Amino acid sequence: MAPLSGITVLDLTHVLAGPYCSHTLQDLGAKVIKVERPGTGDDTRAFPPFVNGASAYFATLNAGKQSIALDLKAPTDRDILDRLLARADVVLENYRPGVMERLGYGWEALHARHPRLIYGAVSGFGHTGPEAGKPAYDMVVQARGGVMSITGEEGGPPVRVGASIGDIVAGMFLAQGVLAALYDRERTGEGAKVDVAMLDSQLAIQEHAIALASATGVAPGRTGARHPTITPFSTYRAADGFFVIAAGNDAMFAHLCKTLALPLNPADPRFATNAARCDNHALLKRLIEAVTLEHPAAHWIARMEAAGLPTARVQDMAEVLRDPQLLARAMVLPVLPDAGGTTFTAPGNPIKMSSLPEIDHRRPAPGLDADRKAILDWLTR
Amino acid sequence: MAPLSGITVLDLTHVLAGPYCSHTLQDLGAKVIKVERPGTGDDTRAFPPFVNGASAYFATLNAGKQSIALDLKAPTDRDILDRLLARADVVLENYRPGVMERLGYGWEALHARHPRLIYGAVSGFGHTGPEAGKPAYDMVVQARGGVMSITGEEGGPPVRVGASIGDIVAGMFLAQGVLAALYDRERTGEGAKVDVAMLDSQLAIQEHAIALASATGVAPGRTGARHPTITPFSTYRAADGFFVIAAGNDAMFAHLCKTLALPLNPADPRFATNAARCDNHALLKRLIEAVTLEHPAAHWIARMEAAGLPTARVQDMAEVLRDPQLLARAMVLPVLPDAGGTTFTAPGNPIKMSSLPEIDHRRPAPGLDADRKAILDWLTR
Repeated sequence: MAPLSGITVLDLTHVLAGPYCSHTLQDLGAKVIKVERPGTGDDTRAFPPFVNGASAYFATLNAGKQSIALDLKAPTDRDILDRLLARADVVLENYRPGVMERLGYGWEALHARHPRLIYGAVSGFGHTGPEAGKPAYDMVVQARGGVMSITGEEGGPPVRVGASIGDIVAGMFLAQGVLAALYDRERTGEGAKVDVAMLDSQLAIQEHAIALASATGVAPGRTGARHPTITPFSTYRAADGFFVIAAGNDAMFAHLCKTLALPLNPADPRFATNAARCDNHALLKRLIEAVTLEHPAAHWIARMEAAGLPTARVQDMAEVLRDPQLLARAMVLPVLPDAGGTTFTAPGNPIKMSSLPEIDHRRPAPGLDADRKAILDWLTR
Repeated sequence: MAPLSGITVLDLTHVLAGPYCSHTLQDLGAKVIKVERPGTGDDTRAFPPFVNGASAYFATLNAGKQSIALDLKAPTDRDILDRLLARADVVLENYRPGVMERLGYGWEALHARHPRLIYGAVSGFGHTGPEAGKPAYDMVVQARGGVMSITGEEGGPPVRVGASIGDIVAGMFLAQGVLAALYDRERTGEGAKVDVAMLDSQLAIQEHAIALASATGVAPGRTGARHPTITPFSTYRAADGFFVIAAGNDAMFAHLCKTLALPLNPADPRFATNAARCDNHALLKRLIEAVTLEHPAAHWIARMEAAGLPTARVQDMAEVLRDPQLLARAMVLPVLPDAGGTTFTAPGNPIKMSSLPEIDHRRPAPGLDADRKAILDWLTR
């Protein structure tokens, strides 16, 4: 039986951070009821790409959830929400701070009525502090939280992290808080409020840059694909693309020189120590690529793996979806986006547990309000 | 009382993903005993930057933990480990798959001896699949997992995400699995094994790129700071740096034109729809920056915030550490690296909970084996 079997999550969130959190809780065994705005529902229903007219993006984040459309200002629908809250273990919301209070569903009010209910909130800047009410997007917190300042080419402009880590990492911290609250409730009988900010979450994943800025007084900059303080530790060009070479110490560097048959002496004072290699990183890169450009990445990766050296090709997402190790780990799963019958693929569950049966597909995402009748029936049981 | 108060985590991991996981569990109230290799301890004790001779990097990840040095092949130390395992709720390890079995501490053996013990493992490629045993670094999974293929300038080479998301996201999923297992144990009385792979974890945070590659058959590429399918949604140059402009629809774009007093007509067919703006993104960028370069970022941010438009400056890490909202949220905390008395700062806990008192500092990181006597005393109690 899955760890969260029997747990019901009432999910009032939309777009990304909140639905990502409930998606994780569902993967761990919870039942998720998605409460959507009548008429249009979650904004991501209109986000590309589409398969058979349905958003593959929406389906990726909401596969297997139930949907009910509720107008949180209409008395009949509020009555349904009240009954859902009485049955739920967890409620999630991502409104601007204060909105739930104005609707009559703030933490204090809900906790008084439903002491065991766990309340999870995710917002741009959190429920406290001078800027609590401001709007945010993924890119806003990637910029303000500093990760863009250390991502991009040396001397070039800041670039966005390709994955939406502004939203996703916040959704992950929210899931952690909710899980901790579920555990604690078994001992105390009481629910708790969890308040996660997207901006806070950016700080929490940058241990290295913060240590550098704080201990040295100098903010780290951008270094492209290169590690800021270890050389060689970067991507290098092969004949058909980029692959990783990473040698963390002098012995590994000497081993690497031999493995790739580099035309240089690892005892050369320009390369003999990591500090020297960092000083001469551009020269070393030219010497390495003069060799590696001669053959495709697969040639070099085979040699490095045979020598026990960590390496990988820089894969694009189409290659990732065919990666044998990821397929063997059930990380690329078919998902049915709608009744049309066409499948596409979505990520599997990265949390493999002895108590959690592995899945081999993802269920369809719900149509807007598609489960109203089933949910109302369940409320009467 | 903190949610995980009373929980003991025995942490055999080193470097980043594993210590990051136990750091999170500690923030939620657990006691963490760090088991280190005699002599040198965790590799990160030797990682820069240093404050008073101690690694600020190590201190950031290990503040407040207890340290004991154990040789897992020496009978006396194995006896101590056995007694620690009997008292622990959670054991964490990040050896290559198979190493714990050879040491006699594999999941099957431990589960037979300690049925309530939760076993959390994090590795490069996981405990199953054809490449389970291979070594990995953060950069290896950033490359192989696809995120580098969508991070960087359009037409430029792939770049590394500045934060170590290859490790950190895996540590976060491991924390989620451990928390779910703790909850489940309250009902079943049984521990579980959690097996998280750094490569799997990369796939799980790329919902958008995977949906694009899977639904369209075309792998997405790099677009610098620009959102791939929304315009304007990027960073733009002000007189003194970069800031974010993000207009998600036509009405917001018209509002933006007015707010920034842009010399263009939002009804101009080249800019009237998001599709047209995406086609003409380079032209639009030139028109916007011709205006925004005239004043510093603070000028534009004040205007945009007054108009309710999401925005932010691209902050470097030194600016982040002075950000008033982050300071108000206790996300920048002093930490004492050693007995020398100099403090530096580290990230606070991003999971704010009504059941968890806020902290205003981080405790020192332990010296290697510094808590041996206290731990042995505790074992006799």
